[in-house]
Amino acid sequence: MHNYNYYLNLINEAITAIKYPEQPAQLYAPIAYTMALGGKRIRPVLTLMTCEAMGGDTSKAINAALGIEMFHNFTLLHDDVMDRALVRRGKPTVHTRWNDNVAILSGDAMLTIATQIVSRVDDDILRPMLDLFNTTAMEIYEGQQWDMDFEQRNDVTVEEYINMIRLKTSVLLGCACKAGAIVAHASDKNAATIYDMAVNLGLAFQLQDDYLDVWGDPATFGKETGGDIANNKKTFLLINAMNLATGNDATELEQWLNIDPSFKMQKIQAVTALYERLGLKDLARKAIEDYSERALALLRQVEMSHEARQAFENLITSLVNREK
Amino acid sequence: MHNYNYYLNLINEAITAIKYPEQPAQLYAPIAYTMALGGKRIRPVLTLMTCEAMGGDTSKAINAALGIEMFHNFTLLHDDVMDRALVRRGKPTVHTRWNDNVAILSGDAMLTIATQIVSRVDDDILRPMLDLFNTTAMEIYEGQQWDMDFEQRNDVTVEEYINMIRLKTSVLLGCACKAGAIVAHASDKNAATIYDMAVNLGLAFQLQDDYLDVWGDPATFGKETGGDIANNKKTFLLINAMNLATGNDATELEQWLNIDPSFKMQKIQAVTALYERLGLKDLARKAIEDYSERALALLRQVEMSHEARQAFENLITSLVNREK
Repeated sequence: MHNYNYYLNLINEAITAIKYPEQPAQLYAPIAYTMALGGKRIRPVLTLMTCEAMGGDTSKAINAALGIEMFHNFTLLHDDVMDRALVRRGKPTVHTRWNDNVAILSGDAMLTIATQIVSRVDDDILRPMLDLFNTTAMEIYEGQQWDMDFEQRNDVTVEEYINMIRLKTSVLLGCACKAGAIVAHASDKNAATIYDMAVNLGLAFQLQDDYLDVWGDPATFGKETGGDIANNKKTFLLINAMNLATGNDATELEQWLNIDPSFKMQKIQAVTALYERLGLKDLARKAIEDYSERALALLRQVEMSHEARQAFENLITSLVNREK
Repeated sequence: MHNYNYYLNLINEAITAIKYPEQPAQLYAPIAYTMALGGKRIRPVLTLMTCEAMGGDTSKAINAALGIEMFHNFTLLHDDVMDRALVRRGKPTVHTRWNDNVAILSGDAMLTIATQIVSRVDDDILRPMLDLFNTTAMEIYEGQQWDMDFEQRNDVTVEEYINMIRLKTSVLLGCACKAGAIVAHASDKNAATIYDMAVNLGLAFQLQDDYLDVWGDPATFGKETGGDIANNKKTFLLINAMNLATGNDATELEQWLNIDPSFKMQKIQAVTALYERLGLKDLARKAIEDYSERALALLRQVEMSHEARQAFENLITSLVNREK
């Protein structure tokens, strides 16, 4: 097994090697721009790691890895249009730098290119790979729609929230691992178990995101904390707070949710204090640990070498204990 | 061979039979709404006709036909967002009836569902079918981008315009025919020739669209004429006019292009008269006839029964002589 950076370099080299047509420039330049923004590249790394751990040839998994990363970046591009996000990874979003139409159309093209790249596998695994990829894509759209629906609702349950983040973010980690397993011709059981492992890892990862937005150290987190609170984003924390707060706490939360945006700093401080009073810091940490322990337990059921398992354990531990 | 309505009924039954998940409603309801809007269903009919003409089993071509129709409707949905179109086939567009985010996300889902449906073919033709479908999709995005680029330019050549409509609309007709040929296990030569036939048919069809918008009879055309002129849409006619008009004609055209929208009726009358003075009515008819003759000539090179060829000839003739 190789280390994370080894796989990351393979992915980044493959991304750099993609040649886009020169024209029409407004269609292809935003795709190259988006793919060059970087990021942790967790999904394609998981594909390569899983393939190698299951005895496959990683050079045959690079296209599946690349296609999944392209798909992930397509969803970010269209999500940024829908969320009116101005910045992604420190740079202007595509619809900000170009315009909405360019973002919509180049995103569409990224989805088709992603499908083309994922299809560059041996004929005998083309159908299972495509089925996995397309089914996952549908789940992700459902997750994004639920996320938008939830912003209009005040009665979202924790169960609904967990299902939403499972669809919106976790199944793509599952898809990434399973794609590597398919290339390695792993057994159905191994492929299904590593998929479930990655879904639980994804849930822990997303809850860690919610946690860090409130309790992360801005110096190491790399961005301002409190953004979710300032924007009334329906995270694991806010949903739990809305469900658990009673009496004065409920009244106070309601007031902060409706306060003028100019009171941003006071709001972040007060809501953070309220979250802590309601025991949500511990509740969130416990949920993160539960999902990461489930991921580790599932990992132990997958047949792989001790060394490979150790590499996955290290990755799970670092992702759910990360500070940024 | 069967008649157009026979194939149309097969397609409409298959569209009605598609079952979408109930939830999330905002993701799936716009897809069902879009697919129920109707239309001529030319593309899927071409797939079924070609499959039958080449000796294939049309029941095996229905999924390719359906996926291509779903893809076509996805492009209309996203194009309507980009063009800010309010009405499609007499009904509010998805972004008007719901909102932009719903239109973007349900369009994305339609693209993935289209890919899933097109993939429901026998394993031995999965790869050529997918390659055809994805390559065509990329060409269509390029065509849409060129179309948007051209709206910002005043130096578009007729050659560039023809290439744009080839990409934006004709290649999908080619794809529809070739998909039917693939299901029928036609020879590469037959598949390539019927593809070229349909591309030429598509060019004739689109130029007829441009023509009818100016000289169609509003009673039979089913909508107001002159919309392209009112909106300065860079059609075959306007591009030719911009290239051919000199002296007073050029000055007059320039003035009408910049006139206040309240002079819409006068503008349509005057620009139509200018087009006729420049000989563009005849030029357009000649171009339409040239492309439809090329389509007929290519059709004669495809191996099929006399009866099948006759059915295609009737279709070509009716499409390029249509009044609506």
